Amino acid sequence: MNPEPIRLFVTGGTFDKEYNELEGSLFFHDTHVPEMLRLGRCLVPVEVGALMMIDSLEMTGDDRGLIVEHCRNAREGRIVITHGTDTMVETAAALGRAIRDKTIVLTGAMIPYKFGSSDGLFNLGSALAFVQTLSHGVYIAMNGRVFSWNCVRKNREKGIFEAI
Amino acid sequence: MNPEPIRLFVTGGTFDKEYNELEGSLFFHDTHVPEMLRLGRCLVPVEVGALMMIDSLEMTGDDRGLIVEHCRNAREGRIVITHGTDTMVETAAALGRAIRDKTIVLTGAMIPYKFGSSDGLFNLGSALAFVQTLSHGVYIAMNGRVFSWNCVRKNREKGIFEAI
Amino acid sequence: MNPEPIRLFVTGGTFDKEYNELEGSLFFHDTHVPEMLRLGRCLVPVEVGALMMIDSLEMTGDDRGLIVEHCRNAREGRIVITHGTDTMVETAAALGRAIRDKTIVLTGAMIPYKFGSSDGLFNLGSALAFVQTLSHGVYIAMNGRVFSWNCVRKNREKGIFEAI
Amino acid sequence: MNPEPIRLFVTGGTFDKEYNELEGSLFFHDTHVPEMLRLGRCLVPVEVGALMMIDSLEMTGDDRGLIVEHCRNAREGRIVITHGTDTMVETAAALGRAIRDKTIVLTGAMIPYKFGSSDGLFNLGSALAFVQTLSHGVYIAMNGRVFSWNCVRKNREKGIFEAI
Repeated sequence: MNPEPIRLFVTGGTFDKEYNELEGSLFFHDTHVPEMLRLGRCLVPVEVGALMMIDSLEMTGDDRGLIVEHCRNAREGRIVITHGTDTMVETAAALGRAIRDKTIVLTGAMIPYKFGSSDGLFNLGSALAFVQTLSHGVYIAMNGRVFSWNCVRKNREKGIFEAI
Repeated sequence: MNPEPIRLFVTGGTFDKEYNELEGSLFFHDTHVPEMLRLGRCLVPVEVGALMMIDSLEMTGDDRGLIVEHCRNAREGRIVITHGTDTMVETAAALGRAIRDKTIVLTGAMIPYKFGSSDGLFNLGSALAFVQTLSHGVYIAMNGRVFSWNCVRKNREKGIFEAI
Repeated sequence: MNPEPIRLFVTGGTFDKEYNELEGSLFFHDTHVPEMLRLGRCLVPVEVGALMMIDSLEMTGDDRGLIVEHCRNAREGRIVITHGTDTMVETAAALGRAIRDKTIVLTGAMIPYKFGSSDGLFNLGSALAFVQTLSHGVYIAMNGRVFSWNCVRKNREKGIFEAI
Repeated sequence: MNPEPIRLFVTGGTFDKEYNELEGSLFFHDTHVPEMLRLGRCLVPVEVGALMMIDSLEMTGDDRGLIVEHCRNAREGRIVITHGTDTMVETAAALGRAIRDKTIVLTGAMIPYKFGSSDGLFNLGSALAFVQTLSHGVYIAMNGRVFSWNCVRKNREKGIFEAI
């Protein structure tokens, strides 16, 4: 049970939003994932790379194509993707239709990591556990639960993911 | 993939240490696990119960017997135990020898949750993920890794768990 | 040197911004000032009241009139006001021209309190100290410094207050 | 009202206690005061120097002599000292009897800064404000209040400072 290396692709999302003190607005600066892995004292080898830093509402078909391409070309068979929650299901579907021989887990956060009360660290911990134990497939891991890409939707009124 | 209910037994450990401002020392007051589950917006049903609130260096054979008893009698087949790291391996061994028809995951923290920089939330997230996906057995989940109870030791110099 | 009671009027501002997880935007919910006073273990009697909960860019002349009115009518001679930084100078001027027999200190934050890295608690501590020690007048206290209302401007490029 | 430079002497105390994850105990590593000044975005020039890093219960007469000496020799007329609360009154008395031509404010924390719920940032903000506004003398600033060195005691049951 020696840990296989895991690939982690950052795409932005609430996870990585920061507060711009000059504008009083939210923006993306740099990913907090390496800092979160240090905070979690993560001892599994995780290779982090940022593919983009965007709000998932702004993600285009080309962006999704890029994510699929990077997952397909990654040497690792186990991949975590941090992603905005609004279109996480769409990206999971694009991956699920294209890639069948890897374990890919998408995760995110409802509250930015830089806010004291974020769910991000909890979600990152569970995503890294799910990606090590689940068989090939594409999954969404949020708030303790895990869903196959074709059995999940985001309930926007409640702000949660649920099985369909 | 509807989530089965999970049983979570609290035994104390670094996880739940607090700072006594009158004495300037560390002590146990009450468990922070329910607060951590709220912070993680956990949507898996988790039933939390505190069996004891002690430093694991003070845990006796009787205490371990009590933990085994509670795990055996729990209705749930999936159990997480929060535990001090110093004797986590001993408790895992007591459970591993006694119980073979459940999935039990022990977890803890190197830094108390009430300290801003705790690994506790990350570990709790991964423990809840491992307990949902691993087959029957007793495991230790710390810092992204998971070990079977009979293949792990704590390296006290480095303060980490490692495979044996 | 028994502490006189202090009046604290909340008007909103960055101090009290929160993250709306359904919308992914910032909003005002309720003031965090009582929680901050508890965190600071404040032992000076402070009476907190919210006059409004708005971004100071949206503050109108009527809003400023209301703040002046409440300060004039307060029984206390020492008043702290939490306020957005964008128009803090304007509100201080309205107060400075109208009220000469009280000590009034406006303060705020560059980063919302609910973000882990806020300057709010530091500013609140200093505002409460300045209001207890300065003579009658209207002041702005930000980031360790204090300015009379008619000797200060906000440098918007740098996001700081400076003497004029 | 241009800010005079302030001298800040660190002596240790709860302020700067950290958690040793290998031992599970509290210890002193390095001072957090510069990090706290950055968090407070402090714009007053503060020169920080550590004289010692100890629990104030272990502070000897020699240690107090050293503190008095450093305060006397400092170029600055305004000095803040971070100090454990247990013997803060004794050190204040040693300073109060020896130095009459400077403004010296001692402050501390009931909870270590590295714990999420510390009163340290609030106290530091108020100490820096008091030291800028009070006349010559030696003071203790804790939890929003300020006391002259010869009118204060620590109430150990309640864990607070009170006037005598």
